Amino acid sequence: MRITSETCTDGIREQLFTIGDIPGVLWTPAEGTGPRPLVLIGHGGGQHKKGWEVVSRAFPYVTSCGFAVAAIDAPGTGDRPEHPEIRRLVALLQEHEAAGEPFRSFPEWPALNETVAAQLIPDWQTTLDALQKLDSVGDSQPVGYYGLSQGGEMGIRLVAAEPRITAAVLGLVGSDWLIDIAARITIPVEFVLQWDDEGAPRDSVMKLFDALGSAEKTLHANPGGHFRIPSFEIDSSIRFFARHLSSS
Amino acid sequence: MRITSETCTDGIREQLFTIGDIPGVLWTPAEGTGPRPLVLIGHGGGQHKKGWEVVSRAFPYVTSCGFAVAAIDAPGTGDRPEHPEIRRLVALLQEHEAAGEPFRSFPEWPALNETVAAQLIPDWQTTLDALQKLDSVGDSQPVGYYGLSQGGEMGIRLVAAEPRITAAVLGLVGSDWLIDIAARITIPVEFVLQWDDEGAPRDSVMKLFDALGSAEKTLHANPGGHFRIPSFEIDSSIRFFARHLSSS
Repeated sequence: MRITSETCTDGIREQLFTIGDIPGVLWTPAEGTGPRPLVLIGHGGGQHKKGWEVVSRAFPYVTSCGFAVAAIDAPGTGDRPEHPEIRRLVALLQEHEAAGEPFRSFPEWPALNETVAAQLIPDWQTTLDALQKLDSVGDSQPVGYYGLSQGGEMGIRLVAAEPRITAAVLGLVGSDWLIDIAARITIPVEFVLQWDDEGAPRDSVMKLFDALGSAEKTLHANPGGHFRIPSFEIDSSIRFFARHLSSS
Repeated sequence: MRITSETCTDGIREQLFTIGDIPGVLWTPAEGTGPRPLVLIGHGGGQHKKGWEVVSRAFPYVTSCGFAVAAIDAPGTGDRPEHPEIRRLVALLQEHEAAGEPFRSFPEWPALNETVAAQLIPDWQTTLDALQKLDSVGDSQPVGYYGLSQGGEMGIRLVAAEPRITAAVLGLVGSDWLIDIAARITIPVEFVLQWDDEGAPRDSVMKLFDALGSAEKTLHANPGGHFRIPSFEIDSSIRFFARHLSSS
């Protein structure tokens, strides 16, 4: 792991890093040392590790809870190199979208998600290995995951595969092909649904929520489309992680 | 309004009162004077104004938010006189239940709710008139309502009829006959659903949530039956009321 830059603003230390070819960012409280709970944030499709959606969650997790928060670029985004296969699949999706076809019927969705996941899930695990070697994170503290939309699609796969993650906020995803994977998840989950989501229709999202194997799972549904999550859901996720990651 | 008893315990002043033949209770912070936001709590079926469900919400609303909280007995419960018609309808419901018939098909449900509502809704309005004349409540502060199950059934009717109520936590109810009434509600609502609720099946509850006319409405669904609401939903309701009632 190589730290490529470090800045401190408003009580938050931001460290950009690379682990091999994985570009990432770690936010920790500027004051204080020693191990602390960690939240991994998976960004949405077409976004990157420092997009507004990531930062708007990461900063309060650091300042309100004292957590460490990390994000990495998904393949083909941010500081990653071009990924020809992902680029090809995204271009095909955009053609369907421009033609006004319904999102859920795009035949390239499963292939795109498989391609991203094949690289991103192992990369998250490599990143977690490296972060847990840092004094500011350590390997004795709980780990959470936050990700909606493509970050939810990837999160369900990651959480099902990674026993170090013990609480997760997921949602805005209703992929049929995740049902069996979701059933293997047993950690506490807060699952987010947008009532009028054109990309992840409510019935499909509820089917995934229903499939989760977790004894504690809570569904939060709000009116509006895919991108209209109310800001009080950020506050809710803070309390969710505070409840599940702060006790030890 | 006649205060029939007053006690102070753990920082909470409890005043039992009657307004005509309406028996009620008001909780306020033991310390401090002057007007404050008020939350009305409607109890569930077969319960009463000081049941565990009411008290477990009322006490933190007082101690965490400094609110006044009031509850009254529904007709035929608590310190109310016997109500022969309600007694007759409840006995019929219990017969259906003992025979193992599905809750939702009991033909007496609509009649029971109409009978309770015909008295309880005007009684709530009379109670609110009286409470707003007290120095410890006043008529300049926002008013909220909390009620699930029968407290939700009555709450939807009360909130739709009473413009002084500006935020409400409702739920565990899916009555078809409330659809048009729910559509008239425009205040912020937190709506609670139990995923495996035998009495208020999820589809019926979601239909009512969908019908609410509110721009801000949020659905919280959790696994388990009618009575298994997780305790973090109490915490969530505290924050909901703090957000909507504390600003003025």
